[in-house]
Amino acid sequence: MERIPILRMGNTLLVTIQVDMQDRTALALQEDLATRIADTGATGVMIDISGLEIVDSFVGRMLSSISGIARILSAHTVVVGMQPAVAITLVELGLSLDGVRTALNVERGMELLRRIREEAPLGR
Amino acid sequence: MERIPILRMGNTLLVTIQVDMQDRTALALQEDLATRIADTGATGVMIDISGLEIVDSFVGRMLSSISGIARILSAHTVVVGMQPAVAITLVELGLSLDGVRTALNVERGMELLRRIREEAPLGR
Repeated sequence: MERIPILRMGNTLLVTIQVDMQDRTALALQEDLATRIADTGATGVMIDISGLEIVDSFVGRMLSSISGIARILSAHTVVVGMQPAVAITLVELGLSLDGVRTALNVERGMELLRRIREEAPLGR
Repeated sequence: MERIPILRMGNTLLVTIQVDMQDRTALALQEDLATRIADTGATGVMIDISGLEIVDSFVGRMLSSISGIARILSAHTVVVGMQPAVAITLVELGLSLDGVRTALNVERGMELLRRIREEAPLGR
């Protein structure tokens, strides 16, 4: 099974999702992220989905789930790079990304993370 | 065909390679990177290969080729996250990554890019 790499940049973990997620890959990513957050004490998780042309309810739930897990482990999550067509589809399908913050690209995501870390530090 | 996302962080472009590269994906990545370097004026390219368990001569040539293209466009390239087993295989196979600089992880790669930008600015 392929595992999705998690890159550490300072106190942020960066994940780029490129492939269509299968159940096992998604579960492995959640586990890996939880472990890395705990190990590194990262306070931010950035998930880039610019490579995804389709975000269905499965991926939507996974993003919400990762965000929830990260929050419990005292890290904020920002999803970046959503393609316009994906945003349109999400709204059309009535899928909401519960508790997931978004930003246009990595740079704005970093800026957003910096700001929400200052405004609402989570436990550290 | 899937395209590999290119993330911009300041003056560095970050690419995470997760899937086994096919010829067309590799060519598309080279083109996309060249275009993005020209558009953004990026002076550094970081390629994370921590998701690859095998680097064969095709991938090796692709990394060298990207590095060469980037250099012509005035950007330095650093490959990060190579798994130990991959390094061993490369040496055993006698594959050299011509002109490709490497670092252990993204953070060290960023540090290396910063240093080589200062030491050997390329045309900007």
